[in-house]
Amino acid sequence: MSIHSSVILGTNVEVGEYAVIEMGVRIGDRVTIGAHAVIKEGTVIGDDVEIGDHVVLGKRPGSNKKMARKPATELPPLAIDNEVVIGSHVTLYRGLSLAEGVFIGDHVSIREQIFIDRHTIIGRHAMIEPNTRIGKNVTIQTGCYVTADTIIEDHVFIGPCCSMSNDKYMASGKGTHTGPHIKAHAKIGNHATLLPAIVIGEHAVVGAGAVVTKDVPEKAVTMGNPARVKS
Amino acid sequence: MSIHSSVILGTNVEVGEYAVIEMGVRIGDRVTIGAHAVIKEGTVIGDDVEIGDHVVLGKRPGSNKKMARKPATELPPLAIDNEVVIGSHVTLYRGLSLAEGVFIGDHVSIREQIFIDRHTIIGRHAMIEPNTRIGKNVTIQTGCYVTADTIIEDHVFIGPCCSMSNDKYMASGKGTHTGPHIKAHAKIGNHATLLPAIVIGEHAVVGAGAVVTKDVPEKAVTMGNPARVKS
Amino acid sequence: MSIHSSVILGTNVEVGEYAVIEMGVRIGDRVTIGAHAVIKEGTVIGDDVEIGDHVVLGKRPGSNKKMARKPATELPPLAIDNEVVIGSHVTLYRGLSLAEGVFIGDHVSIREQIFIDRHTIIGRHAMIEPNTRIGKNVTIQTGCYVTADTIIEDHVFIGPCCSMSNDKYMASGKGTHTGPHIKAHAKIGNHATLLPAIVIGEHAVVGAGAVVTKDVPEKAVTMGNPARVKS
Repeated sequence: MSIHSSVILGTNVEVGEYAVIEMGVRIGDRVTIGAHAVIKEGTVIGDDVEIGDHVVLGKRPGSNKKMARKPATELPPLAIDNEVVIGSHVTLYRGLSLAEGVFIGDHVSIREQIFIDRHTIIGRHAMIEPNTRIGKNVTIQTGCYVTADTIIEDHVFIGPCCSMSNDKYMASGKGTHTGPHIKAHAKIGNHATLLPAIVIGEHAVVGAGAVVTKDVPEKAVTMGNPARVKS
Repeated sequence: MSIHSSVILGTNVEVGEYAVIEMGVRIGDRVTIGAHAVIKEGTVIGDDVEIGDHVVLGKRPGSNKKMARKPATELPPLAIDNEVVIGSHVTLYRGLSLAEGVFIGDHVSIREQIFIDRHTIIGRHAMIEPNTRIGKNVTIQTGCYVTADTIIEDHVFIGPCCSMSNDKYMASGKGTHTGPHIKAHAKIGNHATLLPAIVIGEHAVVGAGAVVTKDVPEKAVTMGNPARVKS
Repeated sequence: MSIHSSVILGTNVEVGEYAVIEMGVRIGDRVTIGAHAVIKEGTVIGDDVEIGDHVVLGKRPGSNKKMARKPATELPPLAIDNEVVIGSHVTLYRGLSLAEGVFIGDHVSIREQIFIDRHTIIGRHAMIEPNTRIGKNVTIQTGCYVTADTIIEDHVFIGPCCSMSNDKYMASGKGTHTGPHIKAHAKIGNHATLLPAIVIGEHAVVGAGAVVTKDVPEKAVTMGNPARVKS
């Protein structure tokens, strides 16, 4: 292990082989940290957290010259609340906050400027872009892509491999970027596609494989390509 | 390296830098193990196996309070037969059995209670859920998602980025969970979507991007959203 | 760290904890290399390159008995030009060449016999197959799958989670393998599906979720399943 002298460790913390814990990290009680974990500067971890092998926690965003959207440079440290479970090979950015009991599957990557509320499940290999809010008791299943600038309210269910976008003009520099807004208790079927700025109403259901090009009223069921509301 | 004193190593085993091999692991002859590999308690590895860098082999499933389906707690060790090839950044769970000559691409994750038969290929970044049986000489291409409770028979071909689901009611607590049953020699085009409990007949062909909402007869060709059999 | 005695390091190179740098690797000036990085034999890295944690650079392709397409055995070393940025958990193969300023997101895997031109962005979790050419100032967003034998010209934009294929007969052994040819300035919407050998014309637009089964003329807009050109 390589643990910086400034790190604050609680009681009964288990740190895996070859883990790297950087300056100013604070770790609560009864936390387990996997082998080869990399926990970056300033990350704050609560009590009873389980962290898998080969994770990278607290990464800062990078960029190149072509990138139109420059990442934020001033970001608060990654904050992981009590009883969070994090799988293997996960990348979590600085500027992310995970509330109590959140579950993050293996191979997930989650960017900055995001809050994920209590007990929400993020399935394996899911990808979540910046500037997004995800409510409590949400399920985002394996392989989902959540675009930037998205709102997902409480108790939403998103099936595996769904995709979303936030830029109607596809990097033409026109318009603003707005992801979908998925209201409470909505259910999205597997492999569905949501276009930018779509609002999915409360308790609405989107069928598997649907391509949703316009708003879906509350409690409505929509399916097909383009998706049409079933009457 | 960190190799527990109880580990049994065959002859001509090469272990990469900073690998971690836990208690009770048994490794056959002429096995190569990549750098930073983590091989967990009790894993059994045959002869002539190639294991990439940064793998996690023999992980136990985790859960949080919201999760309806609690993972099995009593699982046999991960079993890897002779001549298996495993890529980099792979996560394989305890309770998985890989038969002779199976190929697992980079960045794959495979859960527990699964058997994968001889010479089958699992493409890079594929995600396979629990309680599933995959036959021999199957190809599951890059980026596929195989849901839980699925049967894939021998000689099936699944193109890249296909998705499946197993819960018609999307976590409403109604009905049972059943994934697709894909019969021998069926071919599934890239990016297809299969709904729960669908049966794809022997030698049937599903077109690229199809959304399959009902059973497909043997030798039939189906395409579209919803998919319709071509006459 | 484990750095082979033959490695040539420039000035102001920072190497992360537990990194493994193999025989004959050459690294330029002002390069940062993350923790647990594995840089394989002969890899050539320019100046001002940033490399994330847990990467595998310069991997050789593997295979099993079932695989019809045997990977090339004679491959030049992985070549990474100046100012390239590489995320965490990335796998790059031998026989890949990245031009100046390319950006590779986290969890990406890129195979052999590929050239990626200047300032192109490859989003997180993207998967790129062998024998492919990608132009300059291209954006391939998060979660995309680029099949083998593909040509992507300059200034193309590919939205998140798009998929492509290159084998019309799905491993039947008939026909040749040809991926799509996407011409300059074309834009592909998120979660679109492109069939083998499709040509997407210059400045053409493919809608989100479209399943493109035939060529798209230049400047045309196409959408639906199967996709139809909007008149």
